[in-house]
Amino acid sequence: MLQPLWCNADLTPDAARILQHGIGERPLVMAGEPTESLFPGRPDPGMDGAEIALGQPDPHQILATQSVRWVHITSAGYTRYDFAEFWKGLASRGAILTNSSSVFSEPCAQHLLAFMLAQVRRLPESVQAQARGEWAYAALRPITRLIQHDRILLLGFGAIGRRVAELLQPFGCDIVGVRARPTGEEAVPCFPMSEAIRLAADADWVLNSLPASDATAHFVDRVFIEAMKPGAIYANVGRGATTHHDALRKALMEGRLGAAYLDVTDPEPVPAGHPLWSTPNCWITPHIAGGHANERDRLVDHFLRNYSRWQADEPLLDRVQPR
Amino acid sequence: MLQPLWCNADLTPDAARILQHGIGERPLVMAGEPTESLFPGRPDPGMDGAEIALGQPDPHQILATQSVRWVHITSAGYTRYDFAEFWKGLASRGAILTNSSSVFSEPCAQHLLAFMLAQVRRLPESVQAQARGEWAYAALRPITRLIQHDRILLLGFGAIGRRVAELLQPFGCDIVGVRARPTGEEAVPCFPMSEAIRLAADADWVLNSLPASDATAHFVDRVFIEAMKPGAIYANVGRGATTHHDALRKALMEGRLGAAYLDVTDPEPVPAGHPLWSTPNCWITPHIAGGHANERDRLVDHFLRNYSRWQADEPLLDRVQPR
Repeated sequence: MLQPLWCNADLTPDAARILQHGIGERPLVMAGEPTESLFPGRPDPGMDGAEIALGQPDPHQILATQSVRWVHITSAGYTRYDFAEFWKGLASRGAILTNSSSVFSEPCAQHLLAFMLAQVRRLPESVQAQARGEWAYAALRPITRLIQHDRILLLGFGAIGRRVAELLQPFGCDIVGVRARPTGEEAVPCFPMSEAIRLAADADWVLNSLPASDATAHFVDRVFIEAMKPGAIYANVGRGATTHHDALRKALMEGRLGAAYLDVTDPEPVPAGHPLWSTPNCWITPHIAGGHANERDRLVDHFLRNYSRWQADEPLLDRVQPR
Repeated sequence: MLQPLWCNADLTPDAARILQHGIGERPLVMAGEPTESLFPGRPDPGMDGAEIALGQPDPHQILATQSVRWVHITSAGYTRYDFAEFWKGLASRGAILTNSSSVFSEPCAQHLLAFMLAQVRRLPESVQAQARGEWAYAALRPITRLIQHDRILLLGFGAIGRRVAELLQPFGCDIVGVRARPTGEEAVPCFPMSEAIRLAADADWVLNSLPASDATAHFVDRVFIEAMKPGAIYANVGRGATTHHDALRKALMEGRLGAAYLDVTDPEPVPAGHPLWSTPNCWITPHIAGGHANERDRLVDHFLRNYSRWQADEPLLDRVQPR
């Protein structure tokens, strides 16, 4: 008799059916309170006795529930699980944590390219001119340009960075990355994080997909921003906490940076009346870079790919380990 | 002694120097009144005796100036030269017409991809929400999506169509085209224009880069628009005259189409207060798709590439002939 799969992901009825079908005879226990991938779930009595926890389980309940051997979270970010006691608890019973970064890398990479093309083709300014009923040919045409032969610095080179480099391939850009542990086998030249400031001085674009952690908190700080090439464009689809937003605002107000495109912010959400909303050349999308209409289906597909590996005792995809 | 190159293109001082340098000892006669590539030039006495006319020469003056053997225009569109008497006059003295479509295909293709990514990542709605100081996570995240496995119909498969197919290559889309004379050797399956309505029924995107001509006038008419797949997206970077804008507005107001992205319109410019400005899901850029900050430099580079072919008696690039 298989132990249950417990799930607090907020699934559509279709996705729930596909999940139940995919796990065959294993019992599926849905939590009383489902939760979206961006929001923490609360302790739920249904988890008792489960072998697998899927969704956004409460990390302290995971620690207390010895039966859980595999936690698969429906987000790419795992900050709420990233503390010593959690890792120790998992390790003590040989349990593992996987996340859904493969699900979100494609939309995030498309979002970054959308930001870049919107900037060079002046789409935000066109939307603003349209709201005024103004044909802004003379103002906008001279400031359009091409993405071509540009120098791009990727902050973080995980699944998103790899994919954005693929999407940019036809543009003939010059792409470099920084990441915590370069392997030397990346598709673009990758350097340690300590090289970022040196590389930023030459980059026309800085594209940030860093996760939140102690090491990345305010990585893009005043010093980094002052080191950036004048007129460069900054884009962030990682986590808001990696960026010092006051320093960024200052650089935009002084015209030192060309523009900023932010899908993640600090504070997040940006409150009504906050100065970030009206900072010049600062364009904000509301934490939608990872979104896609069939997101829940793709989350379930991804879990089920991992589930068949689990059943076959094969290594799991998107495994997360202590840094 | 070489006969002059006459030019009424509105060049930057740098571009003019590069042009003069590039033609060596041939005299350069700049017109009294320069003109931009989108606007017709007026007759100019300096053209008398010129062998080459560069810019936007008045077509009737070209007919009257027997010395001109090569006309190179600084636009992709050539509607103002496309009449029987002009072609006859050129042919009678063995003169030829070339345009600058290679210069504008790259920005137009990038503009089309910008439109597509803006739509799936919901950038126009994000700009609007930002103007209201509103974090529209709940409204926008569920309607974001991916460009992936989508069916794309290209109306026209010239330099722009070829390039947009290249830019879309990493997305794994299913691309087909229609064009006046398919060769069977295109990079994507291409069909005659008469197949367009059949193909539109299956297309998630219809991307229009058709030139203006008698054959393309209102090609996208009520019948075509009604044949489009419900929820499909229409984008146009070709010419406004190819599209029946009243039929398009009706389809958008009734919600039959998902969105329209228009860089060219009819009327153009869109006048203040015109209903197109406020048509739902209709996003307008003001004829900037071909623009790029170094446009004049690239126009001169392109002319000079052709000039060295002219001097070497080789076939010219971007030659235009009667349809």
